Order: sequence, then C-alpha cells, then structure tokens
Amino acid sequence: MTYATGNIVIVGLGLIGGSLARALRRSGFCERFIGYGPREPSLHRGVELGVIDEFTLDLDEAIERADILVICTPTLTASRMLEQILPKLSDRPGGPIVTDVASVKGSLRDTAIEVAGAMPAQLVLAHPIAGSEHSGVDASSADLFVDHRVILTPVAGNDAAAIELVRTMWKSAGADVVDMTVEQHDAVLAATSHLPHVLAYTLVDALSSCENSDEIFRCAAGGFRDFTRIASSDPLMWRDIALANKSALLDSIDLFSEHLQRLRAAVQNENAGELLDSFNRAKLARDEFAELLAQRGESKPS
Amino acid sequence: MTYATGNIVIVGLGLIGGSLARALRRSGFCERFIGYGPREPSLHRGVELGVIDEFTLDLDEAIERADILVICTPTLTASRMLEQILPKLSDRPGGPIVTDVASVKGSLRDTAIEVAGAMPAQLVLAHPIAGSEHSGVDASSADLFVDHRVILTPVAGNDAAAIELVRTMWKSAGADVVDMTVEQHDAVLAATSHLPHVLAYTLVDALSSCENSDEIFRCAAGGFRDFTRIASSDPLMWRDIALANKSALLDSIDLFSEHLQRLRAAVQNENAGELLDSFNRAKLARDEFAELLAQRGESKPS
Repeated sequence: MTYATGNIVIVGLGLIGGSLARALRRSGFCERFIGYGPREPSLHRGVELGVIDEFTLDLDEAIERADILVICTPTLTASRMLEQILPKLSDRPGGPIVTDVASVKGSLRDTAIEVAGAMPAQLVLAHPIAGSEHSGVDASSADLFVDHRVILTPVAGNDAAAIELVRTMWKSAGADVVDMTVEQHDAVLAATSHLPHVLAYTLVDALSSCENSDEIFRCAAGGFRDFTRIASSDPLMWRDIALANKSALLDSIDLFSEHLQRLRAAVQNENAGELLDSFNRAKLARDEFAELLAQRGESKPS
Repeated sequence: MTYATGNIVIVGLGLIGGSLARALRRSGFCERFIGYGPREPSLHRGVELGVIDEFTLDLDEAIERADILVICTPTLTASRMLEQILPKLSDRPGGPIVTDVASVKGSLRDTAIEVAGAMPAQLVLAHPIAGSEHSGVDASSADLFVDHRVILTPVAGNDAAAIELVRTMWKSAGADVVDMTVEQHDAVLAATSHLPHVLAYTLVDALSSCENSDEIFRCAAGGFRDFTRIASSDPLMWRDIALANKSALLDSIDLFSEHLQRLRAAVQNENAGELLDSFNRAKLARDEFAELLAQRGESKPS
C-alpha cells in the first residue's frame, strides 16, 4: 500500500497542530494544509498566519480531502473525534492515514477497537513529547519538535506502510522517532509526566488547605516555584489525562508512595546512611538526565 | 543593653556569608568584616574579593573581636559551632551578638539550651530565605537578600535589644524581616522547602530504580526537569536538614501522603469532579503564589 501526502488535515489548530503544519510546510512533506475544528476564530487566525491554507467546518469534507488527518486535540476530545471519524473511514478504502498527538494511547486504542470492531489499518497512534508554556496557534513554531521525541505506538492490525508514513512525517518535522508498545508508552508517560503533575497539584492543594497557608506561600522561594510550576497547568486537561491513563497512573502513584514511606521510615529512624544513599542516587540520576537534555539542545539552565 | 556593630565576624564564608558581608558593607551597617572558618582558601579569596577585610583561623580571637558573630554554615555545622562558641561567651558578658542563617531552628535552639543551660540572651536565631544555583564566596552578591524574607525566631530568654539589632542588620541588607516561633518556622520550612526536596529526591530515586528507567529518563522533558531541579541539590546538606527537622518533616510527609491517597482514590473511583476541584484549587493557589513572587521582583518566568 502506498499513500499520498499532498493534503494534510489538522484537527484542532493549537500549539501542537499549528507547529506540525509549520514544520511540514518548511520541510515540504505536504503540499496543502487544511484546518478542521469547532473554533472558527483559531482557523481564521491560522489562515492569517499562513499556518494553514484553508479550513473547513465540515468533517465529511475534511475526511474526503485528507491524505493524512492528524487529530491534535487533548486526550478525551481525541477519543470523541475517533468516534466520529472512524465510522466514516470505511467509506474511503485506502485513505486517509489517521494519527494523533494525545498524551495517553491505551484509551484511544480501546476507543478505536470499540468503534471499528478492530484496530483500523491506517490509524497510527503517536505522541510528540514537546510543548510550551504558551498555547494556541499564535505560539506555534516550525522548530517545536526539532530534536524532541515522538513516540509511535503501532499495534497489531496497523498497516506497515501507514506506520512508516507517520514515522517519516515526524522525522521530516525534525523529531527523534521511537517505537513503544501502548503499555510501555502509558507507563513511561505516567512516570515522567502524569505522576509529577499529580504530585505538584497534590502538594499545592495540601499546603493551601493548611491553617497557616498564607504564611507558607509567603515564605516559599525559587525552588518551590520550579517544583510547582506544572501545578499551573490546565486542570481540565489533566483531569482527563488522569482518568484516561488511570491504570498506569495508579501504578506510578503506588511506586512513588512506597518509596516515600521507605524514606519516611529512614527519617523516623534517623537512618542517616539510607537517607544519604537515596539522595545520592537521585542526584546522580537527575544530573545525568539534565546532561541528556542539554545534549539534546534543550539548553535552558537546569 | 546597647550593642556595638563595628566588627562583624562571618563564620563560614560562602554564598550566604559573603553576600551578607557585601550587603552590610554597602549599607554601612558594620565597619570591619572578619572571616573565620576552617577553609583558608575561601578566606583568602574573600579578602582578595574585598568581601572581608581580614580573617582569623582562631575561634577565641574571632569571638574576642566580634560585636556580631554570624554563623553562616549549614544546619549540622551550625550546631557544632554553637557547641564551641557558647561556652566561651560567658567569659565576655555584653557581647557579642550571635546569630545564624540555618534552615532549621528547633535543633539549634535545643543545642543552645543544652550547651548553655538556658537560651543565651544574645543568641538570636534567624533564617534568610534566599539562595542561588551557585555556591561559594565567588557567587556572593550584595543584592542576594533584597526583598527576600528573613525569618527571626526569637525565644524566651533573648534580650529584646539583641533581637532588634539582628532585625536592623537584615533590614539594612535589604531584607523583609518577619518573626515566627521556632515551631512555626520549622513547620513552614518543612512544607515549602524540606518536603519538596524529599519529594523530588524520592521521585527521581523511584524512577531510577525502575526496570525501564533508561526509557523513562529519555522521554522526560521540560516539565520534569523543572520539577526535579531540586533533586540536584547537595545530598549531604539535605540529609542533615531532614534529620535536624525530623518532627516537622514527618508531619509534612504525612499531610502530603494523606492528600495523595485521597487523590489516588479519586482516580481509582473515576471521581472526575473531585479531581477537577483539587486541580483547580491547586492551580489557583499556585498562580497566586507566582504572582506574589513576581510582585516581590523575582521576575524569572513562572
């Protein structure tokens, strides 16, 4: 099976969708960029900025014209989009390729299998590990994915050529593409992203419920600001992610809680050696990680 | 009782001690800056930089010449310094004022009472909430404390004039000085600093012990970097703080664990409303906190 790449439809034109369009326009991977979504102002703005060439508010038209259709919405909306898109795909054998950018893959795979009866050959799930403090198409950049990871989670039933097309698309956007199983992806993301968000939200919520919370926040400084930065993230989006990745997130919370209780016991028992060993291991791993990011060109001081 | 302020002795000439000396020289609060400590190279460097005027390696001489003696070492070393200094103070009624900058106050108060039999009138415990990614006298700056909090923890037995002198000293360094009880201070610092460090160390240690830890760290990005930055802090210093502030830290860990288990239950039970409420409360508190820091002139983007 070979697939065309002329027309790409971006479903949900925000930071990620806009950046992908800019990157693929620069690389020449696609010829025509079409926006689809419910929010007309974003789509108008996308045309104004030259991110997309045109847009449609009609899903049937979007699917009809697409060679590649990228769902660039948050997790739960992506599930709902699949529910609308997949039943229409059977009318158009051979295309389009459908892919996404959501933070959780298991929930989307399950939705797809439920809706389509089996994993559609041309639905290739993917997740770019990139973002910005800013959101919206105005913040989009052709460089957003350069040297950033994109995780593909191909599953049984996927067409090999469809997988390769999505891989080539992300590579042409400058990304470093790796494959994982759906389960690996969701476990890794739970550990590195979903758990930290839950911990940051929990800490700030716990402290804000304290009797002396005013005094607490007045005395917090730079380290606390960095540690809690992700607690300023969008609560709705993170509620959806927590629910979509429930099983892997619960495993991560339990792993963390077990280690925290072990450390608590070391403090309680004044076990200086165990505390130092744990802090030393953590510092070593964290310094190596910071070095890795620096090598990848994420040069913000760490 | 009135106290002289001509000669100040800085015990432990690093970032904090050096910055205090620079700030007090600029404000004219003291006339002569004398370094004392075990590490001669730092002291030589301090003279070279004009941070101190001279230094001594002899503690008796340091105490003899000091009007104010500021212990600028980490927590455990500060305790050991008190054990050496306090017995010598009885030989010199009327001075010097002794103060410190350590992160835990209860352990120092207890050491002082144990060594001296009662809280010495001229020992005023204090803690400036300021720091830098860099350490050592070379990183010191006269501006380090400007608009930063300094917490004084006066206790029964302290001379009122001694308390006011230490307050005036920090104000002249540009700080915003507030009073707390020892217990309030240790609880607030456990919540805003010691607990976050423990959580960051625990997260990184837990993930680095996972089977797929390589994959985990390779897929982590900017949010994880900010969240774990404090896990690159000095393990020895944080082991000492965890042990010195044991009781308040255990309380903080328990408060956090209780909230985390509540959130875990909300994920388990797919209680979307409770998750959203908790994330919303946290975002609100965190945004207000970031605003507060910005108003205080800590303008790093948050």
